[in-house]
Amino acid sequence: MSVLRTRPVATPVMTAAFGDAALVAHALAFEAALGDAQAAEGLIEADVAAAIGQACGSIVIDPAALAEEVALAGTLAIPLVVRLRGVLDGAAAQALHRGATSQDLADVVMMRQVRAGAGLLLADADRIVAALSRHARAQAATPAIGRTLLQDAIPIGFGLRIAQWCAGIADAAAGVRDAVAGHAAVQLGGAAGTRAGHGGRGAAVAARMATALGLADAPPWHARRGGVAAIGAAVAILTGACGKMARDVALLAQAGIGETREPAAAGRGGSSAMAHKRNPTGCQVALSAAARAPGLVAGLLAGLPAEEERGLGGWQAEAPLIADLFLIASGALEAMAAVAEGLEIDPAAIAHNLAAAGQGDDIGESVAIVAALIDRTNLDRG
Amino acid sequence: MSVLRTRPVATPVMTAAFGDAALVAHALAFEAALGDAQAAEGLIEADVAAAIGQACGSIVIDPAALAEEVALAGTLAIPLVVRLRGVLDGAAAQALHRGATSQDLADVVMMRQVRAGAGLLLADADRIVAALSRHARAQAATPAIGRTLLQDAIPIGFGLRIAQWCAGIADAAAGVRDAVAGHAAVQLGGAAGTRAGHGGRGAAVAARMATALGLADAPPWHARRGGVAAIGAAVAILTGACGKMARDVALLAQAGIGETREPAAAGRGGSSAMAHKRNPTGCQVALSAAARAPGLVAGLLAGLPAEEERGLGGWQAEAPLIADLFLIASGALEAMAAVAEGLEIDPAAIAHNLAAAGQGDDIGESVAIVAALIDRTNLDRG
Amino acid sequence: MSVLRTRPVATPVMTAAFGDAALVAHALAFEAALGDAQAAEGLIEADVAAAIGQACGSIVIDPAALAEEVALAGTLAIPLVVRLRGVLDGAAAQALHRGATSQDLADVVMMRQVRAGAGLLLADADRIVAALSRHARAQAATPAIGRTLLQDAIPIGFGLRIAQWCAGIADAAAGVRDAVAGHAAVQLGGAAGTRAGHGGRGAAVAARMATALGLADAPPWHARRGGVAAIGAAVAILTGACGKMARDVALLAQAGIGETREPAAAGRGGSSAMAHKRNPTGCQVALSAAARAPGLVAGLLAGLPAEEERGLGGWQAEAPLIADLFLIASGALEAMAAVAEGLEIDPAAIAHNLAAAGQGDDIGESVAIVAALIDRTNLDRG
Amino acid sequence: MSVLRTRPVATPVMTAAFGDAALVAHALAFEAALGDAQAAEGLIEADVAAAIGQACGSIVIDPAALAEEVALAGTLAIPLVVRLRGVLDGAAAQALHRGATSQDLADVVMMRQVRAGAGLLLADADRIVAALSRHARAQAATPAIGRTLLQDAIPIGFGLRIAQWCAGIADAAAGVRDAVAGHAAVQLGGAAGTRAGHGGRGAAVAARMATALGLADAPPWHARRGGVAAIGAAVAILTGACGKMARDVALLAQAGIGETREPAAAGRGGSSAMAHKRNPTGCQVALSAAARAPGLVAGLLAGLPAEEERGLGGWQAEAPLIADLFLIASGALEAMAAVAEGLEIDPAAIAHNLAAAGQGDDIGESVAIVAALIDRTNLDRG
Repeated sequence: MSVLRTRPVATPVMTAAFGDAALVAHALAFEAALGDAQAAEGLIEADVAAAIGQACGSIVIDPAALAEEVALAGTLAIPLVVRLRGVLDGAAAQALHRGATSQDLADVVMMRQVRAGAGLLLADADRIVAALSRHARAQAATPAIGRTLLQDAIPIGFGLRIAQWCAGIADAAAGVRDAVAGHAAVQLGGAAGTRAGHGGRGAAVAARMATALGLADAPPWHARRGGVAAIGAAVAILTGACGKMARDVALLAQAGIGETREPAAAGRGGSSAMAHKRNPTGCQVALSAAARAPGLVAGLLAGLPAEEERGLGGWQAEAPLIADLFLIASGALEAMAAVAEGLEIDPAAIAHNLAAAGQGDDIGESVAIVAALIDRTNLDRG
Repeated sequence: MSVLRTRPVATPVMTAAFGDAALVAHALAFEAALGDAQAAEGLIEADVAAAIGQACGSIVIDPAALAEEVALAGTLAIPLVVRLRGVLDGAAAQALHRGATSQDLADVVMMRQVRAGAGLLLADADRIVAALSRHARAQAATPAIGRTLLQDAIPIGFGLRIAQWCAGIADAAAGVRDAVAGHAAVQLGGAAGTRAGHGGRGAAVAARMATALGLADAPPWHARRGGVAAIGAAVAILTGACGKMARDVALLAQAGIGETREPAAAGRGGSSAMAHKRNPTGCQVALSAAARAPGLVAGLLAGLPAEEERGLGGWQAEAPLIADLFLIASGALEAMAAVAEGLEIDPAAIAHNLAAAGQGDDIGESVAIVAALIDRTNLDRG
Repeated sequence: MSVLRTRPVATPVMTAAFGDAALVAHALAFEAALGDAQAAEGLIEADVAAAIGQACGSIVIDPAALAEEVALAGTLAIPLVVRLRGVLDGAAAQALHRGATSQDLADVVMMRQVRAGAGLLLADADRIVAALSRHARAQAATPAIGRTLLQDAIPIGFGLRIAQWCAGIADAAAGVRDAVAGHAAVQLGGAAGTRAGHGGRGAAVAARMATALGLADAPPWHARRGGVAAIGAAVAILTGACGKMARDVALLAQAGIGETREPAAAGRGGSSAMAHKRNPTGCQVALSAAARAPGLVAGLLAGLPAEEERGLGGWQAEAPLIADLFLIASGALEAMAAVAEGLEIDPAAIAHNLAAAGQGDDIGESVAIVAALIDRTNLDRG
Repeated sequence: MSVLRTRPVATPVMTAAFGDAALVAHALAFEAALGDAQAAEGLIEADVAAAIGQACGSIVIDPAALAEEVALAGTLAIPLVVRLRGVLDGAAAQALHRGATSQDLADVVMMRQVRAGAGLLLADADRIVAALSRHARAQAATPAIGRTLLQDAIPIGFGLRIAQWCAGIADAAAGVRDAVAGHAAVQLGGAAGTRAGHGGRGAAVAARMATALGLADAPPWHARRGGVAAIGAAVAILTGACGKMARDVALLAQAGIGETREPAAAGRGGSSAMAHKRNPTGCQVALSAAARAPGLVAGLLAGLPAEEERGLGGWQAEAPLIADLFLIASGALEAMAAVAEGLEIDPAAIAHNLAAAGQGDDIGESVAIVAALIDRTNLDRG
């Protein structure tokens, strides 16, 4: 893939969270946690587990070389296990990956990335909510013309508009948090989801792994993918909430309106053809993300009718879809965080547009609604 | 629209829930509840509210004629209010719809349909869960060959396969229930979402309306559509969970496999060309629904970046998308309920296929996993 | 389905083209054409074919009753054939539908609807192209400020903006025309696509049917659905081209810009809350259609990996998707035709905005580009 | 992005075609071609154009560093032009990029990638068509049981099934070829699509650039994106045609059916848990691609209603969507090419399944239909 195509739409830290090093680290963490849990349950010797853990902690893997083998094998687990066995002695080599299947590893990797990625998204959402709350309260009573169906309507408190952006992003962030808490679960089913090969201790092994890996405990869910789709939908809704704010900021920045602008930043938003322009580049990032997200969710939903115990083609398509969703969401949120924190508001333009509309200045219950919306965003937040 | 195209994919009762009569009734209920709430808050006289309520309860409306006016006006509220005013005297005519906007009415109608529709979906989901739980427990220890990537793998308890269908549908039904509880909220914002025109009592009016209309209370959400998208996504995930069961039943019914079949029913699943065939018609309905649902959700997600206080084109596209999602989900769930209740299971074929696979009969912890999965489905259910 | 939900987004004539009467008529035409073709090829007696044709021309069918039977049977063909056989004597009853399968009939019905629907779309596209061409030429040299990324850029000829709408719709209409010409083909494969049961004359029978039914001739394509997807994609692109024009008209109608407006029409675009408003209702219809179309295409594309000789669930989902695409496209095109024909252009606002931008009045080669764009739209048109 | 996630789903050569080096090379080719064309039209001196061309041919650019600047600026053109100006003297620095805008460059880069990518796709499609034609002819008269709705139906010639795969892929490949030929056009509109700044020679400059860059000539199409969507839809249809073949091969490889298998290859299709398994890994790649493609097309279609002269967010989302479509299509086609060329066909299983179905062995006109289908694939091919 192209860094020139991906860097402008995703944050470096999210790119790393879904990058090769993180992916390999999560895969090795899976194998180590499996060994530890099996040892704790008396299925393998403690020193065998320690040897596996040591190998997982020290093996050096070239992602590009591994990727070639993955492309051939059709799964990550097979070549990875071969490599680990190459540095393990007999007992540990034999114990490695026992009772697990490729998809156990793949799903754990994806869910660990999801959990890390969600933390990043929520942190930027918090930045946005904090900044927008501040603006919304400050502008709650400033009369401005409201616009509906792209036509002037009646007055609003200018802060109400901002509080709606804020509430949309806060609600959607809570949706991501809940979806991840509910669905980012450990996967340990073995070849056909029966937990065979764990000596009847599979549930206990899985529970230990869940704790060690920072995931929820759950029965195997190899062909039950509603949770993945729910996570993806929540991230898309968060991306769309950023897109809503972006669309408004861009509309309000139009010549002839001019009520808000993205913050000025050196090198940001220029035009290769027009020196006078200041483009809403942050809005562009968020709107592009919001344009891409719906189709990615459609891809996740399309894979739900998985075949039998572990499907063919559906779940294997999820990892890139989930990665893309988190990547573009990261870009959208970071862009809107910067816009929210530096948002330029032009009181004179607001007043001028209000007067031009000739609809008076009754802003109804705007101030109370702003307070109610901002209150909602503080639930469960410090 | 064509009854020949819609009837085969949706239940009559869901079709009615999203039909014209229900739609008009919800719209009239909105106006009546608004009048009642305003009277209770002292904004209009009680007899004026009573007159509005009386008119809403007795007016006879021809949906086709109204639809022509809606097509011209661009909203349902305008021609409906004109008609109501035509049967009201001065004070009531003037009070009618005061402080409300077209979208308040449209969103309340949609959310009342959503709430009714969700009740129907959950009832059929319960039927499926009950039937599948029974089969799953009965077959929990029956060894069968598990299949992964469409290839024979290792043995499973046959009931584990069924328990996974069951858990998928139960989890998704819980997701619908939660999404509707959280997001099916009253809409009362007035022209630009400020609740102007309610004499400072807008929040109280909205709260009363929410109670009367059976919806959650909430600040205005005209251009904050994440809740609608979340409801749609949850319904799509439920549809996909039906599709998963359908795909498996159809795969298991193939010649050469023959482990399950849809129940036989007179006139069901015949072929116009082949008298010997018994087609998996219920599976066809569920799989078709699962093929359509993802794109409908994509449409909802695409509308999130709504313009300013009330957008142009996005939210207006939601009502048909939501209707289609509930309609096709109803068909999928009813089809799978009938399949679940009458599922034919062929022990001889299961045993034959297991033996042919030559992988022994160790079903691991299938029985325990079945129990765990079925337990989950009983949470919050009678 | 609800007329209140469907009428505002589709034209009555397109609704009829995809309505029950048309659907039944196409189905009867299929059976009659099959009989005629088989008689012409000597497979059945001429009087048997005549009896079939006579029955198809005179039988009265209640769509609602038939729909119940279709919902049970899972296909239209089975109950329809039963009904026809009920009015035919022995030889004709036996000959009816011989060598055909349910999907042959279903696909022919869909493609006949597609062909009729495309004619309607192209007629409205021609109206738009004619009206926009006129405006574009008239305004080709009128300097106006161009806008990029929602910011003022440099001057353009105002007609260039209009010519781009025009070319977009004309190109997309040509795409629909070509897709339908190439892919709206007869389907006659019989039970498994082998044309068994036609005494070796299947290809000739199919060719005769294609001519009689106004469809292209083709080998069976039961599980080869790329043509259906291509037609759907073309219609979605046409809908999106209407959405592009709609978005611009709505943006240009904003207060503070005011360069164009939808034509005024009694009862059009009012607000239930604000007497002063004139909403861009036509734009709303087109933009809503453009929001829904992408997901419908995604549904068609998702069905491409059909199973074996005739699939389960995928192609059965196509008919409602195709119908919805044509229905919403009809509403979008009609709305934009009315807007194009009555478009209000405000030269003073254009001049004012240009002056305010302070970028001079060099419109570059706008006039020549307008001419080139309009020229393209005249290819293959009268 | 992650090589571990991208390498298994795309060919190295397609990855390179959409990689950073190619992207930068196309961008530099744009600037060089612009200079050359302007010189040929007398707008700049020949030696100035030569200096530009020389700089474009020799400048060394680190993609990662450039990507950081692109992320800040919001466009590729701005930092690229800055870098080029840094190695050019005054006159050439001033002439560089004159009359062009960022989107001119971005669209040319994308269309050059499209053209190169389409060539790669068509080459693999040709491999598939050649191999499948061979199999289809060889097996045309081999009786096999046909299957519809996943149930045994009536006999077919086994080669008919293969010929249908072949025709689906060949038709779709022709669709890609035509879409690219029709829509992969040069973009040269300048800041607002007027070709200002070319001294009235803009059309001639664009025509020269089209020739030099291997693209079709066209008027500016900055906000008219139907062609991009058409290309994307065609690629998705081709991907879906591969998915259709993949689904069939996987279904036919099921235990109890066993009529075909993917070719055996060392290291291909193993299981990390089951040594006996041979997974249909090529089919997995194609089916995953077919699951992802529809949503990517939905993203392209959603961007059609672009704002005014050059939109915000829509077209900027296209490049990654188009890249992903070509990348996953490349993986699907290469996987199916390998499967087609080495397809294992088991005559004994075919005969056994046919006998078990008890439907005789009349394959109707299968042989003739095979011939007709294969004939179609040879149109316009060597």
